[in-house]
Amino acid sequence: MKPGRSLIKHYLQFKDLRAEEYAYLFERARIIKQRFKNYEKYQPLSDRTLAMIFEKASTRTRVSFEAGMYQMGGSVVHLTTGDSQLGRSEPIEDSARVISRMVDLVMIRTYEQTKIERFAAHSRVPVINGLTNEFHPCQILADLFTYLEHRASLGAKGYDLASLKNRVVAWVGDGNNMANTWLQAAEILGFTVHVSTPSGYEVDPVVAGIRNQDCYRVFDDPMQACAGADLVTTDVWTSMGFEAENAVRQDAFANWCVNAEMMAVAKPDALFMHCLPAHRGEEVSADVIDGQQSVVWDEAENRLHVQKALMEFLLVGRIG
Amino acid sequence: MKPGRSLIKHYLQFKDLRAEEYAYLFERARIIKQRFKNYEKYQPLSDRTLAMIFEKASTRTRVSFEAGMYQMGGSVVHLTTGDSQLGRSEPIEDSARVISRMVDLVMIRTYEQTKIERFAAHSRVPVINGLTNEFHPCQILADLFTYLEHRASLGAKGYDLASLKNRVVAWVGDGNNMANTWLQAAEILGFTVHVSTPSGYEVDPVVAGIRNQDCYRVFDDPMQACAGADLVTTDVWTSMGFEAENAVRQDAFANWCVNAEMMAVAKPDALFMHCLPAHRGEEVSADVIDGQQSVVWDEAENRLHVQKALMEFLLVGRIG
Amino acid sequence: MKPGRSLIKHYLQFKDLRAEEYAYLFERARIIKQRFKNYEKYQPLSDRTLAMIFEKASTRTRVSFEAGMYQMGGSVVHLTTGDSQLGRSEPIEDSARVISRMVDLVMIRTYEQTKIERFAAHSRVPVINGLTNEFHPCQILADLFTYLEHRASLGAKGYDLASLKNRVVAWVGDGNNMANTWLQAAEILGFTVHVSTPSGYEVDPVVAGIRNQDCYRVFDDPMQACAGADLVTTDVWTSMGFEAENAVRQDAFANWCVNAEMMAVAKPDALFMHCLPAHRGEEVSADVIDGQQSVVWDEAENRLHVQKALMEFLLVGRIG
Repeated sequence: MKPGRSLIKHYLQFKDLRAEEYAYLFERARIIKQRFKNYEKYQPLSDRTLAMIFEKASTRTRVSFEAGMYQMGGSVVHLTTGDSQLGRSEPIEDSARVISRMVDLVMIRTYEQTKIERFAAHSRVPVINGLTNEFHPCQILADLFTYLEHRASLGAKGYDLASLKNRVVAWVGDGNNMANTWLQAAEILGFTVHVSTPSGYEVDPVVAGIRNQDCYRVFDDPMQACAGADLVTTDVWTSMGFEAENAVRQDAFANWCVNAEMMAVAKPDALFMHCLPAHRGEEVSADVIDGQQSVVWDEAENRLHVQKALMEFLLVGRIG
Repeated sequence: MKPGRSLIKHYLQFKDLRAEEYAYLFERARIIKQRFKNYEKYQPLSDRTLAMIFEKASTRTRVSFEAGMYQMGGSVVHLTTGDSQLGRSEPIEDSARVISRMVDLVMIRTYEQTKIERFAAHSRVPVINGLTNEFHPCQILADLFTYLEHRASLGAKGYDLASLKNRVVAWVGDGNNMANTWLQAAEILGFTVHVSTPSGYEVDPVVAGIRNQDCYRVFDDPMQACAGADLVTTDVWTSMGFEAENAVRQDAFANWCVNAEMMAVAKPDALFMHCLPAHRGEEVSADVIDGQQSVVWDEAENRLHVQKALMEFLLVGRIG
Repeated sequence: MKPGRSLIKHYLQFKDLRAEEYAYLFERARIIKQRFKNYEKYQPLSDRTLAMIFEKASTRTRVSFEAGMYQMGGSVVHLTTGDSQLGRSEPIEDSARVISRMVDLVMIRTYEQTKIERFAAHSRVPVINGLTNEFHPCQILADLFTYLEHRASLGAKGYDLASLKNRVVAWVGDGNNMANTWLQAAEILGFTVHVSTPSGYEVDPVVAGIRNQDCYRVFDDPMQACAGADLVTTDVWTSMGFEAENAVRQDAFANWCVNAEMMAVAKPDALFMHCLPAHRGEEVSADVIDGQQSVVWDEAENRLHVQKALMEFLLVGRIG
């Protein structure tokens, strides 16, 4: 390990970083994005290796982490379940001990959050959560950066995070890993999440791991959740791992489709986000996701930039 | 996108480039090959990323594109069907929008040509056809380069493409993506394809997308197709995706085996090519593919060099 | 091929190198490891490409070769059975001819040793055995380096290989590819292997390919094999490819569990090694593998360093 880095920083949940560290990350992401757009070479990780462990399929997470690492000069070893199923052929702790001696950084997409926590506890290098059943912090990192890009003023030190205070994010749909992560972000950054889920799919503040419940409000009616919102966001009705419940979910979620009517009750300049892939006509209508208020393609692209900033931060610490 | 590159160039069919551009590409391929053989480092793509999407298995296309990109200093994200099946979890257009914001170049091996056309239409970066049901332009690029290497004179501006005029390429076997692409190449570069396929496996000029039919002649008897040919070439009887037809095809293609007798009626210095993998005793006899006129290993290797030239051309434009 | 390198060196069996070459490799591994630990960039392979062909799953071999190549500045094309099953779609010899024209080095994990031998015979570039049914030379390379690190004195020219003479390595368990490779190493480096396997799982000196049988002794009782040993080592009862025999093996191997009792009869400073993954309570007790004498994590990490030294040696020859 690099001399002086006595404490390893992991990114397993959104609350693993403080507001002040997020301000730093967003500013780095902005600079890194700008350089990328201008074809300025920037390769601070040129002798570093990232291991990515995928136990669920992925396109966006895969491409954004892998391309991001390459573009910063580093390299990637991509392990899938076929190569290495965590905890099957050997205890997770053993895998962590071995892999973390050969690479500089590990990204894991897996099922239970406990798996990634156990891995991290025995890892010599930083571990990043690339999606678990409970959390998806890298996506919310991208979403917040996208919101700031579109709606925050840019000062000498970057986007003004204070502009997030008292904003309202409407979460419409499944009380899943994305919803949990929004709650953590709201608690740390001072905004409020309006959550509307079908009955039986509520967010669980214990699972979300928030300390106080002021950061969110629950609405039975998704229209009410959207009322006055600055950002309306949703996710597929059936996330990966829940395919068996698909028919039941199709019924339960029928009224939780973000459509023009919902966007009409949000603020006039409200943004629409979706972590993709999207099913038009299910969780979102085509006119919304393909409409003027949708920033889903910027949001997807920003995974690349914020994760570069995150990897740089975890591997080489603060720059400048 | 790089300033000034307002129009994205894709390589989806052979006819996407003009004769004059092919002359340029062959000369670049020659120079790039020479440098590689001399262990001269040449890394013009050192901050560029290629995404490869494979919906069919591949060895040659995989290794040649991936190694080629690495050797030019770039990097590769390799997506297989397991990771990302185009059009399954999300519309192809959405995948194109997302992936093309994170990488600089996309290579796709898929089924229907329409899939790659739809992807390209929504991509911000160049897209290369790494084989579809209809076309395989990168293979013909390699084949023509191999022919030039062995049979064309080298001038100050590279191989003399005029030497291709009036040459005869005998295509023996399936009227498949390779055959279609040969027709396009013949139309652009001025040679003639003698096509002999079993009944029911003919080339379709509409599918091949050629404007006039002077560029090829059809022969029932493969011996007649080979008569006087400068190049005899074939492909497996059963291409990927047609495995269910295998037994029927074994019968239908029995007389379309390129053997010594066929080579004997071709020109004395005729070359034999095969895009591989080859099944000795089926579409080609062992004495032909392993014989003096066969250039199949050069042909395979040249995939590497011509594709490097192609990627360089699509990403950084003309050099010098 | 690089001018002057008329003879290609492969690493298919442990006996492919001489004692003097191993001394060189261990010293290079030591230097390369030290640089890595100090974050000193060392990229002698920056324009070289390694193709890895895996017909069996792998974590350690995969990560150590791939990360190792990247860290030395090179790049890796990772082919799995799905992409390319040796000998299925085309003869192994054809795959070797094609792949070896596009890359600089090939690592293969496969079943029969004959497969890798046939590949190497038709390859233009060096081939490394990443595990076959018969041998696992890279693992023994790491094991010996780990032993030297912990037990040998370091002189001006590196670890003193003479210190291996007359040492005793106790092999407890399956007479498999690891056991065979230990015999080859013993013959070359002058130590003795005490082998104890259940009946029916004996090592076969013909398969192991040793010239004389003085390098090992067979013991029915694993306790006797361990008596006075400098190193006790074992492997899983059921290696990859033998899963169908699992129930029978569980019975047969019940007494071949390396436990504290066995370690107690070995030398007081004896080391314990295991190539991992380990099944605690089967071939090794938890108190041994997780105990003071176990060096399994160093052993796993050292795969990275010795293989870097090996790749450097095969690709660029002796340094200094």
